Amino acid sequence: MSEPQWHPSDDGINFHTRKWVKPEDLNANGTLFGGSLLRWIDEEAAIYAIIQLGNYRVVTKLISEINFEASALQGDLVEMGLTATHFGRTSLTMRAVVRNMITRKRILTIERLVFVSVDEDGRPKPHGYTDITFDRDRMPREHPATGTIRLD
Amino acid sequence: MSEPQWHPSDDGINFHTRKWVKPEDLNANGTLFGGSLLRWIDEEAAIYAIIQLGNYRVVTKLISEINFEASALQGDLVEMGLTATHFGRTSLTMRAVVRNMITRKRILTIERLVFVSVDEDGRPKPHGYTDITFDRDRMPREHPATGTIRLD
Amino acid sequence: MSEPQWHPSDDGINFHTRKWVKPEDLNANGTLFGGSLLRWIDEEAAIYAIIQLGNYRVVTKLISEINFEASALQGDLVEMGLTATHFGRTSLTMRAVVRNMITRKRILTIERLVFVSVDEDGRPKPHGYTDITFDRDRMPREHPATGTIRLD
Amino acid sequence: MSEPQWHPSDDGINFHTRKWVKPEDLNANGTLFGGSLLRWIDEEAAIYAIIQLGNYRVVTKLISEINFEASALQGDLVEMGLTATHFGRTSLTMRAVVRNMITRKRILTIERLVFVSVDEDGRPKPHGYTDITFDRDRMPREHPATGTIRLD
Amino acid sequence: MSEPQWHPSDDGINFHTRKWVKPEDLNANGTLFGGSLLRWIDEEAAIYAIIQLGNYRVVTKLISEINFEASALQGDLVEMGLTATHFGRTSLTMRAVVRNMITRKRILTIERLVFVSVDEDGRPKPHGYTDITFDRDRMPREHPATGTIRLD
Amino acid sequence: MSEPQWHPSDDGINFHTRKWVKPEDLNANGTLFGGSLLRWIDEEAAIYAIIQLGNYRVVTKLISEINFEASALQGDLVEMGLTATHFGRTSLTMRAVVRNMITRKRILTIERLVFVSVDEDGRPKPHGYTDITFDRDRMPREHPATGTIRLD
Repeated sequence: MSEPQWHPSDDGINFHTRKWVKPEDLNANGTLFGGSLLRWIDEEAAIYAIIQLGNYRVVTKLISEINFEASALQGDLVEMGLTATHFGRTSLTMRAVVRNMITRKRILTIERLVFVSVDEDGRPKPHGYTDITFDRDRMPREHPATGTIRLD
Repeated sequence: MSEPQWHPSDDGINFHTRKWVKPEDLNANGTLFGGSLLRWIDEEAAIYAIIQLGNYRVVTKLISEINFEASALQGDLVEMGLTATHFGRTSLTMRAVVRNMITRKRILTIERLVFVSVDEDGRPKPHGYTDITFDRDRMPREHPATGTIRLD
Repeated sequence: MSEPQWHPSDDGINFHTRKWVKPEDLNANGTLFGGSLLRWIDEEAAIYAIIQLGNYRVVTKLISEINFEASALQGDLVEMGLTATHFGRTSLTMRAVVRNMITRKRILTIERLVFVSVDEDGRPKPHGYTDITFDRDRMPREHPATGTIRLD
Repeated sequence: MSEPQWHPSDDGINFHTRKWVKPEDLNANGTLFGGSLLRWIDEEAAIYAIIQLGNYRVVTKLISEINFEASALQGDLVEMGLTATHFGRTSLTMRAVVRNMITRKRILTIERLVFVSVDEDGRPKPHGYTDITFDRDRMPREHPATGTIRLD
Repeated sequence: MSEPQWHPSDDGINFHTRKWVKPEDLNANGTLFGGSLLRWIDEEAAIYAIIQLGNYRVVTKLISEINFEASALQGDLVEMGLTATHFGRTSLTMRAVVRNMITRKRILTIERLVFVSVDEDGRPKPHGYTDITFDRDRMPREHPATGTIRLD
Repeated sequence: MSEPQWHPSDDGINFHTRKWVKPEDLNANGTLFGGSLLRWIDEEAAIYAIIQLGNYRVVTKLISEINFEASALQGDLVEMGLTATHFGRTSLTMRAVVRNMITRKRILTIERLVFVSVDEDGRPKPHGYTDITFDRDRMPREHPATGTIRLD
């Protein structure tokens, strides 16, 4: 029995956050609740956008079609991968893949997750970036909860 | 100042479940967390599908593009409306609208939410319905947790 | 086998919010946790009171005797209905019914749920209404989180 | 300024479980959410009933009128006290007091919380006790999740 | 079969908060999730520290080695006990014991939980106490959420 | 102002799971709740152990001293890194580092997190591995919820 292969189009995506499917994540049928999964992805995409855009204040603007290809059961391990695909003036477009680490099956793919950088009044704010960073060089320095500038 | 008007295309949708936006529903910017909203919609769609398809076992198959038109703040009231738009052999397609009850602004619209009726092994199972019911005449009688038939 | 009938005294109540009983809602015996149910009702009553009293700031003042008539299992659908029964100077009294949508059995009834309209310091504040609205004509315009007036 | 006094009728009640009011426990007005409070009490009452009746399987049957006397804010400490007031054939009646540990104000009182001892099919089951225990001498030995008998 | 005995070193510890292990507290193997347990202990220790140090603002500084001696299953009752063991200038050291009320087995022990009293900027602040109180005589009077002094 | 540097001893640790600090993660002082943090680490360690030991059934056995070096605020990004440091016959020892992605400050370090591989009755079970894998070659094939063997 040969090892299952990951989907080839996942090449180039870094998978970070992982989840262990616990009873609190299940729907009434005992499989992973789609709503829990969407909640996890939205948080992971917000984190990715903050790192790319250097702004704590990012909001979900658009999520393209989501096709649920496979599910997961209690005890399964799920991982989420994102990659930036387009930098707009105030927005960032990402591609997301979620997969079951054990079966190597893809759970879902989202071709376009669009987040927008906003100012403190919630209006779109240009971010000034045009390409992806693989480093931590754009970390925001002004903290949203306190309004203070971080001096590192 | 005239009353704000609801969006005309919402005519014909029945809005049921309502939420009061509490601190636990906020993202780190203090506005309604997109992931919480998606979790609410997925649960409401599952409920709607169970009522239409007469089967406790329904799974999310596809969610078409989601455009976040407006947000909500702590203390806002949010309501969700769904309507069946297509009955497949094993599937049900629904249209969803979420809106802020107070500002009367639409928060988001989803043109197609597809759920599938499955059997106890998770395989698609024909549901036998071809049109919408506005009654409670298709309620399932076999309970998933116990496998027993309900005698009413 | 004839269809089960809803309880006659439920006539005239509009049922809105629905819940799908998931593992996170169960007590240690695997049935719907009474505390979860009470949490759901309190939120639904707050929403109803805000709509009737036109004030975001409402607090629970009294809940009359609660008789748990039936329970619910994982996978069941539960709906909550409320109706205003008395308008005091600063208070609103409601009647609540919670029922299992599938078995059509009543889960519980609460004859009097009293909420009070308060000002920003938490003191009772007259609301000026004397009868029920079935419309959205009393929606509050001042937002509690920001203190700003909404211009629609 | 003399020390605030506890309410005299609280004498004889043992207060056990304590809560630290966190953001997740607040309603949309920023005060302790009534629904969270009711969830806490129902769990504490279940624990008390299991200890008194020697049966893991207890269900909430009735909660008498609840009068919310005071609220609590984020950061407050809340404690819950219960005492058995009547042993029926299959039921146990308790009195509950919830208070703010810091202001010493009573948050609410419930004169009668009735729980019923049930068998594995959910039917009332005589418990055989007629008075309160202050010890741990009635602990159940059969475990509900596994059906096994504990050999200590 | 003689009654199981509590561990002798638990003498002198007062056990307060109790938990009823529900599905939401389980890990993917169906036993009590260690992370839930740690969350419960941290909250209970914060409460204990506030009572001893007379300051709402306390932060976790150190938790010494935790040895998980036994687990718990759904339906079990868990209780937590704490006792102050050392008063530093700005800190408080506590010993914690968590045990299964039914089997009387210890779930874990923590020899040193150190909390620090801080000011509103998060800097260590001397608390002025040198020994344990078994009363409620040190309750803070300034409220963190509002900054107001309580007049009792 | 030069870039802050990560702590040198973090070299060689892979950081995976990330969290966006939301209101639900805060303690009553508005900083990251230590208990939430411990919950996150315990889940991440379980995931790491399952990947290394090829067994869904792993339990937390020991957590060595935890020193909270810095905190985090709402809106901060937190990442968790783990590395295997010792393989016992039935156990795995890991080192854990949690840090604030924005300030690059370490939040805490745990030198030894010990998990044990168990069989279906919860007894220690030899895992047969002696060194770390950086691949997915040990994924379990028997599913705990269903007992079925996965055929990939």
